[in-house]
Amino acid sequence: MICVLSGGTGGAKFVDGLRQVMPPEEITIVVNTGDDLLWWGLSVSPDIDSITYVLSGLLSRERGWGVKGDTFLCLQAMGQLGEPTWFHTGDRDLAVHLLRSRLLAEGKTLSQATSTISEKLGVRARILPMSDSRVETLVDTPSGEFSFEEYFVQRWYQDPVNSVRFAGASDAEPAPGVVEAIVSADAVIIAPSNPITSIGPILAVPGIRDALLRARGKVASVSPIVGNAPVAGPAGILMDAQGLPCSIAGVARAYEDFLDLLICDVRDARAAEALRGSGLRVQCSQTIMRSAADRAELARTVLAHTVRGPGAGQTLSENSSSDETAAHDADQP
Amino acid sequence: MICVLSGGTGGAKFVDGLRQVMPPEEITIVVNTGDDLLWWGLSVSPDIDSITYVLSGLLSRERGWGVKGDTFLCLQAMGQLGEPTWFHTGDRDLAVHLLRSRLLAEGKTLSQATSTISEKLGVRARILPMSDSRVETLVDTPSGEFSFEEYFVQRWYQDPVNSVRFAGASDAEPAPGVVEAIVSADAVIIAPSNPITSIGPILAVPGIRDALLRARGKVASVSPIVGNAPVAGPAGILMDAQGLPCSIAGVARAYEDFLDLLICDVRDARAAEALRGSGLRVQCSQTIMRSAADRAELARTVLAHTVRGPGAGQTLSENSSSDETAAHDADQP
Repeated sequence: MICVLSGGTGGAKFVDGLRQVMPPEEITIVVNTGDDLLWWGLSVSPDIDSITYVLSGLLSRERGWGVKGDTFLCLQAMGQLGEPTWFHTGDRDLAVHLLRSRLLAEGKTLSQATSTISEKLGVRARILPMSDSRVETLVDTPSGEFSFEEYFVQRWYQDPVNSVRFAGASDAEPAPGVVEAIVSADAVIIAPSNPITSIGPILAVPGIRDALLRARGKVASVSPIVGNAPVAGPAGILMDAQGLPCSIAGVARAYEDFLDLLICDVRDARAAEALRGSGLRVQCSQTIMRSAADRAELARTVLAHTVRGPGAGQTLSENSSSDETAAHDADQP
Repeated sequence: MICVLSGGTGGAKFVDGLRQVMPPEEITIVVNTGDDLLWWGLSVSPDIDSITYVLSGLLSRERGWGVKGDTFLCLQAMGQLGEPTWFHTGDRDLAVHLLRSRLLAEGKTLSQATSTISEKLGVRARILPMSDSRVETLVDTPSGEFSFEEYFVQRWYQDPVNSVRFAGASDAEPAPGVVEAIVSADAVIIAPSNPITSIGPILAVPGIRDALLRARGKVASVSPIVGNAPVAGPAGILMDAQGLPCSIAGVARAYEDFLDLLICDVRDARAAEALRGSGLRVQCSQTIMRSAADRAELARTVLAHTVRGPGAGQTLSENSSSDETAAHDADQP
C-alpha cells in the first residue's frame, strides 16, 4: 500500500503516473480540502475533483483540471444572470458538484460523498479528504484576506502575500482512514504539490503530522520547486510569505520533521549535494511531467527509492514490480 | 392591467401572444407551482420557468419548455453518475435552477427569487407564483401516488388516474400581490392550460377563488380542450378522473362559479351553442397557436372580448389598442 498526500494539478499528474505502474487498489490519496468552496450554492472540492478525474480518466489534460471535452454553457448562462463566473465549472463537471452537494445536504460526510462519487466513476484507488471538517485556506494580502480560490483563480495570484492560515484546522480531525493509511503504508509520498497551500492544510489537521512521524514506511517528497522556481502556480510567493526559501531546501524544511527522502529534479543536483550535507537523503531525477510516460517514469523512480529503496524492507506487488527495472535515478546511476 | 392564470406550455404560448399585442408591463401572470420539484437537490419550478423563458425570448419553441439551443451534457454526466435523468434540465436551464436554489437557501421566498430571476433576464411583465408555500400536485394511480412531473414526464401519463390532490394547499396562502392582481385587473384570463393540474392548484390556494369572484374585470378562459380532446397533454384523463367531461362544457364547469366568458375553438361552435343555452357567454375563435401570429391573434381576440367587450367598461392602453381592429371572432362575424 502506498499513501500519497496531494493537492490539485501537480498531485493529479503524479497520481496519474502512479496508477500506471502499480495496481490502483493499492493507492490511497489523502487530498487537500483547504481550497473547497461554496460555488453557486454547490459544494466544490477542487483538489478531490482533480484526483477523481485523473483516476477515472476524465481529467482534461490540456487544462489540468475539470473534465475533458467539457462545455461551459451553464457558466455562460450564470454570467447572463449576473452571477460570478471566475471559477470555471464545466457542464459535465457540474454533475459531480451537484451530486456531492446533494449527498452532503442529506447528511453524508465529505468522505462518504467522495467515496460514492469515485465509486460511480469507476475509480479503484482510495481517495480520502484530509478531513470531514471544514478547513479553509485563507491568504492574507494588502487588499484583504481571500479564500485560496479567490486568491489563486479570481485574482490570478497577483497580490503580495502577507501570510496564510488554515481556518478551522485546530478543531478539525483527520477523515476516517487517513491516519491509518499514513501510518501503515509501505511508503508515504508527498506529491509535487504546493507545500504551503496544498500540503500545508493537510499537515495543519491535528494528528496528521504525528501520523507521518509514526509512519512505518519511508516518507518521501517530490519537490514542486525546480531550479528555485515552482513548476507551476504561486508556491514561490507563498513559501516566501511563510519564511521558506523557494528552493529544494525550502521544501526540505517544510517537511523536515518527518521527511526521509526528497526527490528533486536533475537540474537541482548541486543544491541536492548541499542538502545531503545536512543529513537528508536526496535523489535527483527527471521530475517534469510532460507526458504520460514522464509521469509513469517519475512514479517508478519514487517507488524504487521508497518501497524498494535501501532500508525500506518492502517489495512492490508483482503487478507493478515488472516495470521497476526501468526506473532511473539520474543523479546516482 | 391584465392578469393571466397560467400553467406551463399552453400558458406560455398564450402569454407569448399577449406580450406581442400589449405592453408587457401591464401583464401579471399568476403561475402554477404545483409541479415544482426538488431535482438533483435543486428547486425547479417548471411552469414559472416556461413563462419566464417565453417572456425573455429564451424559450425553446421546438420543445415548448427549456432554453432554446440548450445542450444536455450535465444531464448526461448525471446519468453516468447513476443519478436520475428523466427530467430534462439543459445546461443553460440549470443556471436558473442554481440561482433559484441559492436564493431560497438564503431565505428568500419563491416570489422574491422569481422576481430576481425574471428581472435579470429582462422580463418586464410581472410573474407571480400562486403561493410561496409548497403546494404539491399528487396524482393517485393504481401504481401509487406520484408527483405531477413523475406522472407526466417520468411515466409519460400512461397510468389510469384515480384522483388528483394538492398537498399543502389548505395551509397555503396566495403569494404577495396575487389577490390584488386578480381583483383589480381589467380582465382576468385563464390561459389554455390543463384545468385540473395547471389551473386546479392555483384555485386550490385559499383566497384565490374568492378573489376571482370579487374580480372587478371580466374573467375569461381560453379552452385547452378542442373537439373533445386536449390540445396537448393529459387534461382529458385528469378531467375524467375529477368527474368533468373532456369538452368545453367540462372546462366551463371547472370554472363555473366565477367565469364570465369562455373562448373556445371554432370547431366547437355547436357545443358552444349548447353552452350558451345554459347562460354562459361563449365566443368561438381560432385557438390553436401554431405560429407567433396565431398567438398574437388569439390574444387580440381575448382582449377584444374581455377588456373591450360588452359590459367590460374598460379600454386598453393606447399602445396596444391600435391592433385591436384586427381581432376577429369567427363565430360572430
